[in-house]
Amino acid sequence: MTFTRIFSGLLFSLTVFTAQADMDIPWTFKPLPDQPPIPADNPQTKAKIQLGKELFFDARLSITGTHSCNSCHNLADGGEDGRAKPVGVYGRKGQRSTPTLWNAAYFTILNWDGSAKTLEEQAEKHLTDPRVMGMPDGYQLATRISSIPGYRKQFDSVFGESGVSFANIAMALSSFERTLVTPNSPFDHFLRGDKQAISAQAKRGFRTFIEEQCASCHFWVNLAGPQPGLAMQQGEGFYELFPNHAGTDYEKRYGLADDIGRFYFSQIETDRRMWRVPTLRNIERTAPYFHNGSVKTLDEAVRVMAKTQVQHVLNDQDVADIVAFLRTLTGEFPAIGLPRLPATPGRTAVAGYDG
Amino acid sequence: MTFTRIFSGLLFSLTVFTAQADMDIPWTFKPLPDQPPIPADNPQTKAKIQLGKELFFDARLSITGTHSCNSCHNLADGGEDGRAKPVGVYGRKGQRSTPTLWNAAYFTILNWDGSAKTLEEQAEKHLTDPRVMGMPDGYQLATRISSIPGYRKQFDSVFGESGVSFANIAMALSSFERTLVTPNSPFDHFLRGDKQAISAQAKRGFRTFIEEQCASCHFWVNLAGPQPGLAMQQGEGFYELFPNHAGTDYEKRYGLADDIGRFYFSQIETDRRMWRVPTLRNIERTAPYFHNGSVKTLDEAVRVMAKTQVQHVLNDQDVADIVAFLRTLTGEFPAIGLPRLPATPGRTAVAGYDG
Repeated sequence: MTFTRIFSGLLFSLTVFTAQADMDIPWTFKPLPDQPPIPADNPQTKAKIQLGKELFFDARLSITGTHSCNSCHNLADGGEDGRAKPVGVYGRKGQRSTPTLWNAAYFTILNWDGSAKTLEEQAEKHLTDPRVMGMPDGYQLATRISSIPGYRKQFDSVFGESGVSFANIAMALSSFERTLVTPNSPFDHFLRGDKQAISAQAKRGFRTFIEEQCASCHFWVNLAGPQPGLAMQQGEGFYELFPNHAGTDYEKRYGLADDIGRFYFSQIETDRRMWRVPTLRNIERTAPYFHNGSVKTLDEAVRVMAKTQVQHVLNDQDVADIVAFLRTLTGEFPAIGLPRLPATPGRTAVAGYDG
Repeated sequence: MTFTRIFSGLLFSLTVFTAQADMDIPWTFKPLPDQPPIPADNPQTKAKIQLGKELFFDARLSITGTHSCNSCHNLADGGEDGRAKPVGVYGRKGQRSTPTLWNAAYFTILNWDGSAKTLEEQAEKHLTDPRVMGMPDGYQLATRISSIPGYRKQFDSVFGESGVSFANIAMALSSFERTLVTPNSPFDHFLRGDKQAISAQAKRGFRTFIEEQCASCHFWVNLAGPQPGLAMQQGEGFYELFPNHAGTDYEKRYGLADDIGRFYFSQIETDRRMWRVPTLRNIERTAPYFHNGSVKTLDEAVRVMAKTQVQHVLNDQDVADIVAFLRTLTGEFPAIGLPRLPATPGRTAVAGYDG
């Protein structure tokens, strides 16, 4: 907490902008790079990305054969499920609203509470979470995947001797996920110097966004704080208290303080109601909002943030302006071809799990 | 029943083949045409197919926002879910195993029991089935789809004045589904004269398939009886009794007679345990088998059919040969690009259904 506060305060104090119509852009905002950081121990290869894509769309990765990664992280849309909380295997409801997977590779830490240090760890945890994909353990998943000849061949080719393994499944998935980036949003064009890329209202909204201290946490390439390699390393979290000011009407109405946040994972007292700062990219595509999905619209989410975090009540114009700015954060979604999944001719790979 | 028996007996009696290695091919087998029959009241257009494709992959068509058509009719694989029985909204289990959607457009009737006369009717029934997509009625689905600006625009463009409606949703979905065909299987090449397109074992299997009377029902382009326009019209069903011979060990082991079949739908006494003859195309991709998904492998399914339908016990060679033949029925799957779904910027379309 202390680190976050000092760090973001420092960055905020360094932002410089003027009151002119053509504002200077704080240095803390950067266009989304075309490529996210790639970990040294899991380099990208074309074959690994293709394998990861097949796994991503394959419901045989869930115990019941009903859920693929794409079931909740829907790549035909905002990279999440449009619901307050996800539904995993056996109809089990998830604990928290699904975060978008678009641009997740720019995070230093994964999940709402930072309970996974890498995409690889996030994948492993969700594959074996009884509320998500429900595999009893990684060995049983690897055994099932290994029973599918087309996969076995691909794993052997991509990973050599280690072949199919739980770790390699997570590595392949993560390699594919590192291609899920949405560059060239209107705001990115604006940051690169095209002053006409966003409307006058969006520019006003951007200024208000900074003045209202939203930019203290929502900055840098993913509008979610530092990316890996800048000031923070992969696995270090950038957290904020939410709600920052306790006892608002919003808090009661939306149950915002009912979840103890990172404390649930870390059991460290100062982590109570601490949350990883989420990205604002493609935010218009990821309603409903917040960790519990309790807020249904983006304008209401903006009001809630201003009140709970900086004790401001925004007027309708300010809200509309900020929302206009946030809508400029929707980027270009890459074309994705539905993969053909490796078959198990004449038999099913999910027999016996008929729940 | 009577019609089916006479009809298929007639066709079988007309089949002519010799004992030579290069067998004559019975006239009742035809390659899959590139295009299925298109109903006059729902002509194909590019825009309508694209709209149907978006709807097909959109989980907002289910009450909970968790299930798209593709959730069970998985187009990345065999057009079904690889499970014994499907899981619909709220974790509800379906009554019967999901039939493949590939080449469904060549059927004269839909569903295991022929309870839908057209793809359009099938779509409407499944969208509002509480165990499948769970929409309370078509009006509520049309209202939701109409709240998505990108869809409203497309429906207005494709359907003119009638715009978004339950019937038009089903029409668009069906238009897309009529593109889900898998031509050019090895067997199709064989039928067109390429005698080397299938192996000697598959040819033996084909002959055994005919000798064992499998071809009495599994004939014509979809190996499922007459296609629309040939002897039968859309909406007429081609049914068979299953199990045909009651009381086998298989029947008990796999619970094959537990389901009353078409009688469940028609309440006509002679429809007890009558079933629409399913397609055998891509059969190696659609395990587990039968209406209850109780049989896990294709070779066992072949044994079960021989015993329950014609009271024959096949030897291992015959089974292997028939399976080799059946594997030549896997066609070319078209490349499908994942669509980008129309957004509801700043809000979710499935708020309030958090089950």
